[in-house]
Amino acid sequence: MNLREKLAEYPDFPKKGILFRDFGPLLRDPAALSYAAARMEESFPDGFDAVAGIEARGFPVAALLAARCGRGMIMIRKKNKLPGRVLQASYQIEYGSDTMEMQEAAVQKGDRILVCDDLLATGGTAEAAASLVEKAGGKVAGFAFVVELSELGGAARLGGRPRKSLVVL
Amino acid sequence: MNLREKLAEYPDFPKKGILFRDFGPLLRDPAALSYAAARMEESFPDGFDAVAGIEARGFPVAALLAARCGRGMIMIRKKNKLPGRVLQASYQIEYGSDTMEMQEAAVQKGDRILVCDDLLATGGTAEAAASLVEKAGGKVAGFAFVVELSELGGAARLGGRPRKSLVVL
Repeated sequence: MNLREKLAEYPDFPKKGILFRDFGPLLRDPAALSYAAARMEESFPDGFDAVAGIEARGFPVAALLAARCGRGMIMIRKKNKLPGRVLQASYQIEYGSDTMEMQEAAVQKGDRILVCDDLLATGGTAEAAASLVEKAGGKVAGFAFVVELSELGGAARLGGRPRKSLVVL
Repeated sequence: MNLREKLAEYPDFPKKGILFRDFGPLLRDPAALSYAAARMEESFPDGFDAVAGIEARGFPVAALLAARCGRGMIMIRKKNKLPGRVLQASYQIEYGSDTMEMQEAAVQKGDRILVCDDLLATGGTAEAAASLVEKAGGKVAGFAFVVELSELGGAARLGGRPRKSLVVL
């Protein structure tokens, strides 16, 4: 199956100059969804203990993989969305920086966590998510993305850890 | 399995006077996740064509169920997050109103859609999500929630359609 055909492209979204890659059609297609989850699963033969999804489009990816692999899921969220004791990591955005959070108790020492998102672009959010896992004492088992925009060089920020991108553009 | 034990409670989050019910521990527990998905699936014996999740905590719930049942998933998002042609529905928040959107092409005429969220409180967001499905020509096959706060009476706004809440408080 060619998953690239399951992506839609929207020029100038969310703003002028950006070509938005929408995985909505892939999500909507049961066969594509199942195929995507299988390709992600087989890309991490050493397994993992839980799957962390980056808000918001990383949540469906992570939950899909958690369901398929019989693992738990962790939500990595924007600031002030998660209750209780949280860890924080900052990352660069176009102008300035933003902060993401993870509940401290979600990762125990030694847990091997697969970090999921829909898109690998500059790698800033994935790197910040990985730092949260490590601050909690966990290990990053790898990264899984639906789409990777290779020209933006995000892979270089992932420290050589295993990575699966279903569609590389 | 008692899923209520898999919820955490946080008083005064996100603000004073609110007792926040966190399904983070449930998501993190593979056995609880699998059990939750099974209970949701069996609650809709007539089936459905796709699962719609309400941003953001509804996404993991919907993806989990989509994966289990071999169905596609639809994202119902906050305003201006989805590209292309979208339908809109407004709902009341504490002061004023907010708007959610769904891609028009996500639902075809006659599609039976299960609407998912983590929480049924006043029912405003679930009702708005259902109206999006119907505007697109679909039918609401039912609603699935992790937690229902029954005192808030949200069920009355769901038009008598099938509903499964895993934990009713």
